[in-house]
Amino acid sequence: MTGHAAGPSGLLTDLYELRMVESYLRAGMTEPATFSLYIRPASQRPWFVALGVFRVLELLETFRYGPGEIDYLRSIGFREQTLDYLGSLAVDAEVWAVEDGTVVFGDEPIVEITAPLPCAQLLETAVINLVHYPTLIATKAARVANAADGRPVVDFGFRRAHGLETGVEAALAAYVGGGLSTSNVEAGRRYGLPVVGTMAHAFVQSHDSELEAFRAFARDHPGNVTLLVDTYDTLSGVRNAIRVAEEFPVAAIRLDSGDIAGLARGARALLDEAGLRDVRIFASGGLDEYDIAALVAGGAPVDAFGVGTDLVTSGDRPAVDIAYKLVSYAGRPVAKFSTDKASLPGAKQVFRGEDGDVLGLRDDELPGTPLLRRADASSRFDKDEARARAATGVAALPADMRSVTRSTDPPRPRLSERLAELARSVTSDRT
Amino acid sequence: MTGHAAGPSGLLTDLYELRMVESYLRAGMTEPATFSLYIRPASQRPWFVALGVFRVLELLETFRYGPGEIDYLRSIGFREQTLDYLGSLAVDAEVWAVEDGTVVFGDEPIVEITAPLPCAQLLETAVINLVHYPTLIATKAARVANAADGRPVVDFGFRRAHGLETGVEAALAAYVGGGLSTSNVEAGRRYGLPVVGTMAHAFVQSHDSELEAFRAFARDHPGNVTLLVDTYDTLSGVRNAIRVAEEFPVAAIRLDSGDIAGLARGARALLDEAGLRDVRIFASGGLDEYDIAALVAGGAPVDAFGVGTDLVTSGDRPAVDIAYKLVSYAGRPVAKFSTDKASLPGAKQVFRGEDGDVLGLRDDELPGTPLLRRADASSRFDKDEARARAATGVAALPADMRSVTRSTDPPRPRLSERLAELARSVTSDRT
Repeated sequence: MTGHAAGPSGLLTDLYELRMVESYLRAGMTEPATFSLYIRPASQRPWFVALGVFRVLELLETFRYGPGEIDYLRSIGFREQTLDYLGSLAVDAEVWAVEDGTVVFGDEPIVEITAPLPCAQLLETAVINLVHYPTLIATKAARVANAADGRPVVDFGFRRAHGLETGVEAALAAYVGGGLSTSNVEAGRRYGLPVVGTMAHAFVQSHDSELEAFRAFARDHPGNVTLLVDTYDTLSGVRNAIRVAEEFPVAAIRLDSGDIAGLARGARALLDEAGLRDVRIFASGGLDEYDIAALVAGGAPVDAFGVGTDLVTSGDRPAVDIAYKLVSYAGRPVAKFSTDKASLPGAKQVFRGEDGDVLGLRDDELPGTPLLRRADASSRFDKDEARARAATGVAALPADMRSVTRSTDPPRPRLSERLAELARSVTSDRT
Repeated sequence: MTGHAAGPSGLLTDLYELRMVESYLRAGMTEPATFSLYIRPASQRPWFVALGVFRVLELLETFRYGPGEIDYLRSIGFREQTLDYLGSLAVDAEVWAVEDGTVVFGDEPIVEITAPLPCAQLLETAVINLVHYPTLIATKAARVANAADGRPVVDFGFRRAHGLETGVEAALAAYVGGGLSTSNVEAGRRYGLPVVGTMAHAFVQSHDSELEAFRAFARDHPGNVTLLVDTYDTLSGVRNAIRVAEEFPVAAIRLDSGDIAGLARGARALLDEAGLRDVRIFASGGLDEYDIAALVAGGAPVDAFGVGTDLVTSGDRPAVDIAYKLVSYAGRPVAKFSTDKASLPGAKQVFRGEDGDVLGLRDDELPGTPLLRRADASSRFDKDEARARAATGVAALPADMRSVTRSTDPPRPRLSERLAELARSVTSDRT
């Protein structure tokens, strides 16, 4: 159950990490460092469904340098001292993390890694990558599911995901974040996700007529058929579907283009007139959570949605500003001050209480439930537990914060007294 | 040299493809079908650098169903007739495609695949996926390179690419499309790309002072050092870099936050005053092609750029509307008429001439260079040839079309007389 190739993964990093390691080693700077992974609040989502911690734990098991990796690094100029260190590197890290599926806010750590500085530094690129995308898509799926307001939603995005593996990961994240089923067969097999399929325009086009295509498909897949009605003329397609529904069971029709609200009303009227009140209307075709919210708010008679490209690319926000920042080295808390990207010093904990979250130091003792726990490879990932955790977390958000049209500023956790004091003292040390 | 896991890849598809195949087989519909892959002109990029054909050719070599895939499909209800077909499937396809790196416009086929209908249908999802992302990123990189107007640009996007493999693919596509080097070490190893690295804020923070950090780094990497100056206060950072440059060679400073234009001017003045006219200024931090074009147009003294998240996610347009449409079945040209997504019938060819492109039928004989060629697994991919082809193609575009701020409508190829006539006759057959 892995989203990246097995085998030594030590080159899944940026060159600067290795160059810094070269300097750390020359200076003997191998004391423990703590890096904190969190999303900056300016990322313009009010909340996130954290996902990917299990991938980080998998990475720590495989992150090493084999002879091929060492040869390559030698060829681009790394010193033998560095290569000796890398060749014998075995990650020994202490990981604190939220559980996958936890709802988090900006500034709140999702993962904190403590390891000897060179090792913790080398992990930066891959750790960010492995949490960023699953969190992005689980969050997007939760937004889509909120917009659909109880109607089923299917992930149709495999073809336009950024890579084949990424399409499979997207399906998993969409399931965890929003309970979405998927059209992605490999994701169904690999992760046991529910898979759903209708028909494509090519099926209609390859037959002599739309009616003949519908009839063949309904006959071949008894009881579980969704007919795609927009290949030629949508309402004529609905009439053909009605003719076929008189001969075979038809579960739904699918609208994939045009004015979905208007066509859904037209289709609903035709279906009802024919006594086919149980035939559902499925809509797809470039939809996002804003479209879905508008269709639902406008009372369009759509019973289920397929969401593709926008879901798997998080189209309105294809990345969030996620950082992996050094917060402590050799027992000394550190911070970054540059104007628009300041960071807070020290290993942290989030205390979730009735009246919101408090971001404190890891050794703070405060009311509320601590969200970060010590995690290791034995912390098994269970997609259904993560999904239930996400559902509970999202349901606990205030309604206005769940709304996809919300435009107020994202919430930020309050700081504990000790963290606020530490941030002041570290800053004044350096200025 | 593969972007997806080896082994049977037949499940890299959407469920509806398999359900349609089930019906095709029951009806004996196994005649040759031609599918055409193209980008719809409304995708709001005026032109594209096509890339990923070589991935499609790789896919055709591995696309099959092993016993594990067959067992899974049986478990979700597929019939034995279907499973027998899939279990013995060996792709035998005729592929016509443009060469990787070719500049194309909307509506112009990038790949056309002819194979027995069930087989060609099953390939849809993966074929779209494998062309979409590389083309998206090669195009984006070409736009970024145009904006930088000759200044070097480095891909910094690995950490926020949608998946680890995707980060590696992004680096390759950025190289082909825009000649970009990369920070991605695995991409450097796997594809022989030039790799570049500077330093991170953590390096500065882990030392007792910025000056000490700069001194250590410059000493350890003689002659090839870029110092990151914005950890605490940017212009103080520049002054520290100047002190170090008096002791060790320093190639560049890097600005990663704040008002890049203003800070670059301030830094340039300080460096020049210190006689360090050869120390270059490297800018990064959330840049896209629009930011770069504005910096260049405004005369900001920036010598090189790092572009990360926006490059590898194609941030302003994280997907384009790419379609794989049935254009012919059993010798009969077919088309789709639905209002906003019409398709043109027949296997096609693009004729590129002095006065623009003509989109014709494959057997048209017209002036100009035909862009699509018969391709097979022996059509070896060479990243440098593809890169040279892209560079030539982009340079041949009118200057206003290369500009990233261009807002006029994207060009569309003219249709050949025979294609226009066929489109009319197929449409009137059905309406």
